[in-house]
Amino acid sequence: MLAPRDLPDIAADVLARIRARRPRVHCITNAVAQNFSANMLLAAGAVPSMTIATDEIAEFVSRADALLVNLGTLDPERRGAIELAMTTAANRVPWVLDPVLVDRSAPRAAYAKALVARHPRAIRLNAEEFAALAGTTSTSLARYAQATASTMGLTGDRDIVTDGTRIVAIANGDPLMAKVTAMGCAASAIVAACHAVEPDAWLATAAGLTLIGVAGEIAAANARGPGSFAVEILDALHGLDAATITQRARLEP
Amino acid sequence: MLAPRDLPDIAADVLARIRARRPRVHCITNAVAQNFSANMLLAAGAVPSMTIATDEIAEFVSRADALLVNLGTLDPERRGAIELAMTTAANRVPWVLDPVLVDRSAPRAAYAKALVARHPRAIRLNAEEFAALAGTTSTSLARYAQATASTMGLTGDRDIVTDGTRIVAIANGDPLMAKVTAMGCAASAIVAACHAVEPDAWLATAAGLTLIGVAGEIAAANARGPGSFAVEILDALHGLDAATITQRARLEP
Amino acid sequence: MLAPRDLPDIAADVLARIRARRPRVHCITNAVAQNFSANMLLAAGAVPSMTIATDEIAEFVSRADALLVNLGTLDPERRGAIELAMTTAANRVPWVLDPVLVDRSAPRAAYAKALVARHPRAIRLNAEEFAALAGTTSTSLARYAQATASTMGLTGDRDIVTDGTRIVAIANGDPLMAKVTAMGCAASAIVAACHAVEPDAWLATAAGLTLIGVAGEIAAANARGPGSFAVEILDALHGLDAATITQRARLEP
Repeated sequence: MLAPRDLPDIAADVLARIRARRPRVHCITNAVAQNFSANMLLAAGAVPSMTIATDEIAEFVSRADALLVNLGTLDPERRGAIELAMTTAANRVPWVLDPVLVDRSAPRAAYAKALVARHPRAIRLNAEEFAALAGTTSTSLARYAQATASTMGLTGDRDIVTDGTRIVAIANGDPLMAKVTAMGCAASAIVAACHAVEPDAWLATAAGLTLIGVAGEIAAANARGPGSFAVEILDALHGLDAATITQRARLEP
Repeated sequence: MLAPRDLPDIAADVLARIRARRPRVHCITNAVAQNFSANMLLAAGAVPSMTIATDEIAEFVSRADALLVNLGTLDPERRGAIELAMTTAANRVPWVLDPVLVDRSAPRAAYAKALVARHPRAIRLNAEEFAALAGTTSTSLARYAQATASTMGLTGDRDIVTDGTRIVAIANGDPLMAKVTAMGCAASAIVAACHAVEPDAWLATAAGLTLIGVAGEIAAANARGPGSFAVEILDALHGLDAATITQRARLEP
Repeated sequence: MLAPRDLPDIAADVLARIRARRPRVHCITNAVAQNFSANMLLAAGAVPSMTIATDEIAEFVSRADALLVNLGTLDPERRGAIELAMTTAANRVPWVLDPVLVDRSAPRAAYAKALVARHPRAIRLNAEEFAALAGTTSTSLARYAQATASTMGLTGDRDIVTDGTRIVAIANGDPLMAKVTAMGCAASAIVAACHAVEPDAWLATAAGLTLIGVAGEIAAANARGPGSFAVEILDALHGLDAATITQRARLEP
């Protein structure tokens, strides 16, 4: 079994594959996150698309290499788009769920649970969102991952990635990440891009969150606040090289 | 009665309260402004939410500490969201109206007037928008504030804040603010955040526009154009301290 | 007939006219592009509006000096807005078509062809989009421009602008432009602004793409990646002067 110390090299390799293959990542994401998520995907080397129009989405998803389903600003149009996208994706296109703010809206939480039953490869969320999704705080992340057969990517001060069997904590990142809107949504988009080039869901999720965490640290070193941080993380992700990833990644079992 | 010279200290204190209490500010705002407004709220220390989905908005608004209603890109979905939000907010959640571009669209102006009749705590607008809303340029801002029982925050070269009794002019800000889209919308969002922590509507509105004006001046000093200005104002708002606010605020009776 | 060597001066003059007249440019554009396009228009000196609400759009378009129709995130609401906008614009308001990603969606391509039949002044697109729109790669750009009576602005490593009779290649720009989402959409918005002040469609289109290309080069010289590049191009466009345009423009017959 892989040790966490192998993960930085794998993360670097996943990024190299994204840059080489330029995977198409279709994002059904909220209105606040669309622009920043698209720019983060471009900075990583992926090719984003964002339409939620019902007569187009099947064609976009069928040609995509990965799909992100983010539940922010969940209007009827986005719900319709999600249904069509999921049917199209089925077992052919890997998809990642971001149940953003499910802790703030009961109907959104119910809808998120129905989507979890359709087996996303990975779910990227924070602690409050996990509590709302799991229904109880006593459900451990690993048990939930096993029960749902989805890799969990829980972000916070330390990110935890588990598929129920394997687990790793990523200690990278910076508090300024919480001061830029849609940073979590963009992280989910990057995770989806990693799933486009890496079939092992746990590796793909851990790689994506490692890349974001390391880029966030580099950005914070150059930023004077959240405005410059949002600019710097795009530059950092675009300029990230394997040596930097290996040196900076702080992964713990 | 408060003298304008007390206002800088109050503005600094309002910002301190936002940072300490992290109020939730729900924004029904236009598609152009959503991302920048969310980032400005985060930079100030508030917690934004932006959904306009009809089955979620009541829950978001009922848990919010303030509500912004901005009339930009006013599609049927946003109108429906506004109705539900206003019913939920009623007398429990303070709300601020931004009748953006009412001077450009007669139906939008008519709708804005109907919303004014429902007593927003404050209305943030520019001179052209005020003329369209008041129906005639001869209506003075103070008289309109008295008639509507809403505090008016009129932004321009100098910002004027009046509740019909008290009035202050804020001479801060920079011409680059007019070169960044959604800057006025974001100012309204910050004003809403101030209403979440300060029950006196005139103080809250004056504090919000003082904070934006001072942050804008600091940003302009570091900016090379409107692109860097939009980045710098986020950094400036995030880094603003009481001493800087007190030194820089230029308030006139 | 004008030689390409006259075009830099004309581009500089078109920019001067935009700054002097502050034309209103109404954009029906995709959700990803709205904010950045509005900021690019403001940086150039134009006044953007973005509403797609059906009860407002006719009034906005009737008062606009140019219209952009961009087919990204093409939902039913945007389609309805386009219909109303085109009826209002008719022969009074010059309009520019951006058939973004028509190569990725058959219904979008069909819709774009129907719009081309309604005679946009100019069409701004890339090579893949042109192939999808023209139906065959063997159709030359000049022949297509003649057949449709629309000036074509094909962007890529070199931009080609032709009305079927006149043709120019613009060798400015930078690879980072492809790493910022909505850069092409924003270029189309700037082209629309040029049409607001220059009645010759070929000159207006060539001027717009020259301005974007030169601003992009200046931005790239100051950027450390795609994040800072997006900031720098706004600053560069805002600060662009005639001497810089004339010195830097690389136009080829």
